[in-house]
Amino acid sequence: MIDIDTSAGAITRVPGFRATGATCGLKQSGQPDLALVVCDRAATAAGVFTTNAFRAAPVLYDAALLARRPPPQLRAVAANAGNANACTGDQGLRDAERMARLAESALALPPDSVLVMSTGVIGHLMPMDNVEQGIRAAAQGLSRDGGADAARAIMTTDLAPKEAYARVQIGEATVAIGGMAKGSGMIHPSLARLAPASRPTAAPHATMLSVIVTDARVAADALQASLEVAAEASFNRITVDGDTSTNDTVVVLASGGAGGPELYVGSRGYDDFCSALTSVCTSLARQIARDGEGATRLVEIVVRGAASDVEAERAAKTVATSPLVKTAIFGADPNWGRILAAVGRSSAHVDPGRTNLWLGAIQLVAGGMPLPFAADEARSLLSSDEVSITVDLGLGTGQATVWTCDLSYKYVEINAEYHT
Amino acid sequence: MIDIDTSAGAITRVPGFRATGATCGLKQSGQPDLALVVCDRAATAAGVFTTNAFRAAPVLYDAALLARRPPPQLRAVAANAGNANACTGDQGLRDAERMARLAESALALPPDSVLVMSTGVIGHLMPMDNVEQGIRAAAQGLSRDGGADAARAIMTTDLAPKEAYARVQIGEATVAIGGMAKGSGMIHPSLARLAPASRPTAAPHATMLSVIVTDARVAADALQASLEVAAEASFNRITVDGDTSTNDTVVVLASGGAGGPELYVGSRGYDDFCSALTSVCTSLARQIARDGEGATRLVEIVVRGAASDVEAERAAKTVATSPLVKTAIFGADPNWGRILAAVGRSSAHVDPGRTNLWLGAIQLVAGGMPLPFAADEARSLLSSDEVSITVDLGLGTGQATVWTCDLSYKYVEINAEYHT
Repeated sequence: MIDIDTSAGAITRVPGFRATGATCGLKQSGQPDLALVVCDRAATAAGVFTTNAFRAAPVLYDAALLARRPPPQLRAVAANAGNANACTGDQGLRDAERMARLAESALALPPDSVLVMSTGVIGHLMPMDNVEQGIRAAAQGLSRDGGADAARAIMTTDLAPKEAYARVQIGEATVAIGGMAKGSGMIHPSLARLAPASRPTAAPHATMLSVIVTDARVAADALQASLEVAAEASFNRITVDGDTSTNDTVVVLASGGAGGPELYVGSRGYDDFCSALTSVCTSLARQIARDGEGATRLVEIVVRGAASDVEAERAAKTVATSPLVKTAIFGADPNWGRILAAVGRSSAHVDPGRTNLWLGAIQLVAGGMPLPFAADEARSLLSSDEVSITVDLGLGTGQATVWTCDLSYKYVEINAEYHT
Repeated sequence: MIDIDTSAGAITRVPGFRATGATCGLKQSGQPDLALVVCDRAATAAGVFTTNAFRAAPVLYDAALLARRPPPQLRAVAANAGNANACTGDQGLRDAERMARLAESALALPPDSVLVMSTGVIGHLMPMDNVEQGIRAAAQGLSRDGGADAARAIMTTDLAPKEAYARVQIGEATVAIGGMAKGSGMIHPSLARLAPASRPTAAPHATMLSVIVTDARVAADALQASLEVAAEASFNRITVDGDTSTNDTVVVLASGGAGGPELYVGSRGYDDFCSALTSVCTSLARQIARDGEGATRLVEIVVRGAASDVEAERAAKTVATSPLVKTAIFGADPNWGRILAAVGRSSAHVDPGRTNLWLGAIQLVAGGMPLPFAADEARSLLSSDEVSITVDLGLGTGQATVWTCDLSYKYVEINAEYHT
């Protein structure tokens, strides 16, 4: 496995990128709310987007831009928090496009070289004067160590920024990959390459967004393929509340600054790049699950021995979204019955007599029947910062890992006291 | 629609049935924990059972008994709360069978004439001495007005018993239908006729159980068909937490005491019987959703205009299980964005521009865009005992109604503070 560095400033540790966060009054809190990430040279780009049928304007804008052929030459990402530009109709689409134009203008970039992202309140038109002011301020504030500021500017209900950085040797070239992400509630990403659609629509107040940059030299199609693989194994394996947002977006910019031969699918080094990108995405995804609304701990659920990988994922996600499982974990209760019941309703093939279950290293269930275990030890494991649950269905070789968090009083508070 | 009477004692208002509740020490609280429902004569019977892959011993026992041909002649139902007889292996199966034998013996009934049901803690063998004592006490205590006692004896985390009674004219005969149910947590029934399986397994501490009795004269196959239709429109349309239990069971006994020609599928009066049975089941199902763990209100979600009924149900259930929707309702927040986001991830076909949404009679969304509305009025509607949400997808004629409840601090308390 590749070493991942989660310290602050990941984005701008990648050579050739500048970033910053600015404050333009989109967040009621007065915190920074506009991030810019800019590449010194034309980059290839890729994106995956929510499959929710209600997609916000910036999702539609980016998907349409990235679908162009020949692939566009990208230079920057402009992202705001505080307003989702969703349920804003045709004006919303115009505003998303204008946000891109404003960034291109402020950065003296060619047209169609900027991707946009939004998260925040819905059903309100974007205050474009603020956005314009924010983009101008950010363009002035760009720096080679502004990654941490950018990561903070995209936060909404997040308690902490999410950053991850890795270096990987690909042939002669040493490649850097840095990413930032936000997300805490309405987290159950279902990301895919997205064909452009025609209308912007509703979106929630929360979402997951991620910007990843690299100096690897990667052909656009290969970058897209690698991002799809990486997202499938990372962002698409986390859940906080089972609620898939309408704004979820992950984009990658690859500058090529590290040199070496261009990577394409199947070329030497491509798999190494995929693996490193997946590691960065996985770190970001786990950070999102750990910082889920009201979460007191990260929960890793592994299902193995399933009839297929798809069934393993289905079973693991059913456990990961079960309110009864999540409240039991909050209460540090080794309630294996709730876990088995969730597996049993997941539609995965199950033979109860072959089902084994572990909490950390403690086996609680063998052949569908409870084993005696030290309750104190189990409660202690459940009280740690990371909880690991493994279910072996004993049927095949299918497996999947999913990350979630517990369900606490604080989750109810955040989501019942928040008013539109 | 048929008038439904939800006052106490529904089961024994049906002529020819006796019932009672007894206390035998299965509940730690010392409350009544064993119910008997007995028919004066041989009855036809039908049952639907959880489709969870982990099925408890009494589910397997009943399903096997009802699958026999010729159909068995049933006389009674014995149900206990406090122990689910689940994750109890082969001994559990023997105990379920013994529970039936004990009831048959205490009531001087022929073999294979009693159905059994259990709900309560899991992974513990049934204390059969207590069960035996309870069944004997109940057999002594049977009465023509013991329906309310039986309904209370099957409660677990329920705050109130659930009962429903209706009378319907079928040809010359006046037919009575009375039912009782329990259920509060781990409620997301997925009931179906069940082929017998081979092994008992895990179950949770909560479950939905229902016993319905009638003096209608109905052929066994017709009774089964009518129960499947009724359950599909009622119990299978409620959810508290999305967690389908391993013990869910609904059985019907039809004594034929009301006389008239035997009803079979397609015969005159059969549809009237189906309709009345559905009304009784719907009342019980709504009572379960209203008494969901921690619930402060009943929520009815109607999706119409869908491409199909199946898609409408999928969309409605996704809204009904969304933690973000349920916490918003607890907070009396008219957060239509969360509702649309849930519809959008349900995999139902959606055209955002055709989507309309109402809270009660207030339209909040037209063509996927927010409408101005009186926030005070919306909050007031959301604070009432019953909340109604309607989504019209504007695509077809598919529709479905689903009932759920809100998600409160109390839900977290009940499920995090409860320890196995």
